Amino acid sequence: MAGTDRQQQIAAERLNAPVIVLVQPQLGENIGMCARAMLNCNLTELRLVAPRDGWPNEAAVAASSGAARVIDNVRVFPTTAEAVADLQFTLATTARGRDLVKKIHTPQSGTAEIRRRALDMGQKCGILFGPERTGLENDDIARADAILNIPLNPAFSSLNLAQAVLLVSYSWHAQAPESPTVPLAAPAAEGNMAPASKGDVDNLLRHIEEELDSHRFFRSPDMKPTTLRNIVNMFTRMEMTVQDVNTLHGILSALTGKRSWK
Amino acid sequence: MAGTDRQQQIAAERLNAPVIVLVQPQLGENIGMCARAMLNCNLTELRLVAPRDGWPNEAAVAASSGAARVIDNVRVFPTTAEAVADLQFTLATTARGRDLVKKIHTPQSGTAEIRRRALDMGQKCGILFGPERTGLENDDIARADAILNIPLNPAFSSLNLAQAVLLVSYSWHAQAPESPTVPLAAPAAEGNMAPASKGDVDNLLRHIEEELDSHRFFRSPDMKPTTLRNIVNMFTRMEMTVQDVNTLHGILSALTGKRSWK
Repeated sequence: MAGTDRQQQIAAERLNAPVIVLVQPQLGENIGMCARAMLNCNLTELRLVAPRDGWPNEAAVAASSGAARVIDNVRVFPTTAEAVADLQFTLATTARGRDLVKKIHTPQSGTAEIRRRALDMGQKCGILFGPERTGLENDDIARADAILNIPLNPAFSSLNLAQAVLLVSYSWHAQAPESPTVPLAAPAAEGNMAPASKGDVDNLLRHIEEELDSHRFFRSPDMKPTTLRNIVNMFTRMEMTVQDVNTLHGILSALTGKRSWK
Repeated sequence: MAGTDRQQQIAAERLNAPVIVLVQPQLGENIGMCARAMLNCNLTELRLVAPRDGWPNEAAVAASSGAARVIDNVRVFPTTAEAVADLQFTLATTARGRDLVKKIHTPQSGTAEIRRRALDMGQKCGILFGPERTGLENDDIARADAILNIPLNPAFSSLNLAQAVLLVSYSWHAQAPESPTVPLAAPAAEGNMAPASKGDVDNLLRHIEEELDSHRFFRSPDMKPTTLRNIVNMFTRMEMTVQDVNTLHGILSALTGKRSWK
């Protein structure tokens, strides 16, 4: 039946859909409008990092115009690292980050990359958006796999949060194959060769930082944040597999003479 | 000068840009948000057909977030026919009109058609949007050259006026032949941010191997070639800059307590 086909198609698309992560959103109304924009585009998984006004939020519900499917399943995390811990590929939406050596995507190329990774490799992907006024912090940008920049009129480029989420979500949605059959994810890489989760990568980065601290790698406290961010960015670009993470833990243990790490 | 080139490029793009026509818009706030979305995407020509609350409208100015270039040049017409009288090709944005024998465009294909007509044939084009609740009337749809339909989640497809204008405007803007905004990849890097030479990378890889050897990382000689190849591959994927290579030499020195390497 055509109706059933469409239902299956929508369900299959959702399986591979990216997670939207709002980092420290301020206004409940904006969260609700983001939820609405997401559901317009068949995205349903919304995560919040430390929303200013807590959660649940009545203003968000009101502004969502009935996008209960998104609002009711919102997950809240205290930190960005925890919010993306199970994801394998993330994009950081920002107009900044030009000083980092990192690929910069448009909404079209970024969501095409996510679609490819999700469909061909079964990867779980996410797209991060920062707080309304300030945008994502450099540390969050450094830990993302690539930057997503929405190219707008340079003389008038301010976009509100929900509009940014709408443009990116629509870019993803507009690339849906019109064919009634959406191929289900067939992971190319399994086990040790699968992409490491962000949580495992984060754990490794903490291992590296701890050893660098105890070996006095950072000569001055002032320089540490910048140097560490570059190191984080460098290792993030490596797109580590599960095995790579284990190998790097092993290298650190060998070089420092310590046998194991938490 | 690059700045002048950019100005000229933006000016040239605007010459061929479509007019946005809001038919009987109700809320000034929505008109203002439409103006903002248009200017975000380098569209500047807004026409209103019989706006409910008249014109000028203070709420529109406030909601436009400074898009004075659009607001100050708004033109108001009593009827749709008069608003489009000088245009040569129009699209009617609607979810209806399926019973009319008329081409249906997506935002992508519709704005591509407009771009082609404007650039190749010098045609002046417009995109019509109806009132907030009811959308365009059938008579206005019938007089348009084609329908523009924004494909959304069929179970949740309501979009506010400014969001619809944003998606359509962005579709047009994103097709700019040379987007005057963002490069697709990180800008060409120089000095410490330039890609490391293969020789420098090779030197670093030998540094790593030597330290791993002296710290008995490779448990069995048989396994060393495979493990080392994986490590080489992993660090190669990092696409190191000159600075990254120096940082990694520094990390190895710090962790092993040796101050320098050949």
